[in-house]
Amino acid sequence: MKALLLVAHGSRRKQSNDEVVLLAERLRKNCSEQYGIVHAGFLELSDVLIPDGIKKCVDDGATSIIILPYFLNSGRHVVKDIPDIVNDTRTEYPDVDIKLAQHVGASDMMMNLLISSANTAD
Amino acid sequence: MKALLLVAHGSRRKQSNDEVVLLAERLRKNCSEQYGIVHAGFLELSDVLIPDGIKKCVDDGATSIIILPYFLNSGRHVVKDIPDIVNDTRTEYPDVDIKLAQHVGASDMMMNLLISSANTAD
Repeated sequence: MKALLLVAHGSRRKQSNDEVVLLAERLRKNCSEQYGIVHAGFLELSDVLIPDGIKKCVDDGATSIIILPYFLNSGRHVVKDIPDIVNDTRTEYPDVDIKLAQHVGASDMMMNLLISSANTAD
Repeated sequence: MKALLLVAHGSRRKQSNDEVVLLAERLRKNCSEQYGIVHAGFLELSDVLIPDGIKKCVDDGATSIIILPYFLNSGRHVVKDIPDIVNDTRTEYPDVDIKLAQHVGASDMMMNLLISSANTAD
């Protein structure tokens, strides 16, 4: 079964992390045909770090996992920290295909999203 | 003339701020019919803070400015810090219509963007 792990930075503000978990739940409902399993995981400042999120997916029966960084900028977290953690964790699950997607900010759709958001101003 | 100010958090890493300025430039090219002026401004950790960005727009001839928060989560920065700064700065330009758009993470388009980004994994 295919899994999607939404990876956010993590915040001291619990409400902010809850928002990401809620987004992962909405994502699960919206792409259930493609991804039977969706979880959230955090780089830091949460009980559910990236390796915990990967474990959740594996425990749920994932045979392949897409790691999706919920980050806008291609900073150190995106180019080094997350790939390093994913590479380290991958060795624990040799039978699971774990792949890293591009971060949200790199999406071709971002330009249209920005213009659409600008039009919400009141 | 209508202006758009893309507001990001700001980073100690210059490259990350440059990325936002570059995004504002791409935005200018993509929505020039709607917004004749586009600039980037930062909450902190930059020479161009939000009031500086607003001033740039006004100096360029803006009569209305949309402030677009380039943030994923509705944390304190989005719900309090940015609105407070915008409200304070607004009083300096009584003849300019300054409006705040919803932050990027609140966009209806985010769900499709996430699913599209997940499909980039390799």
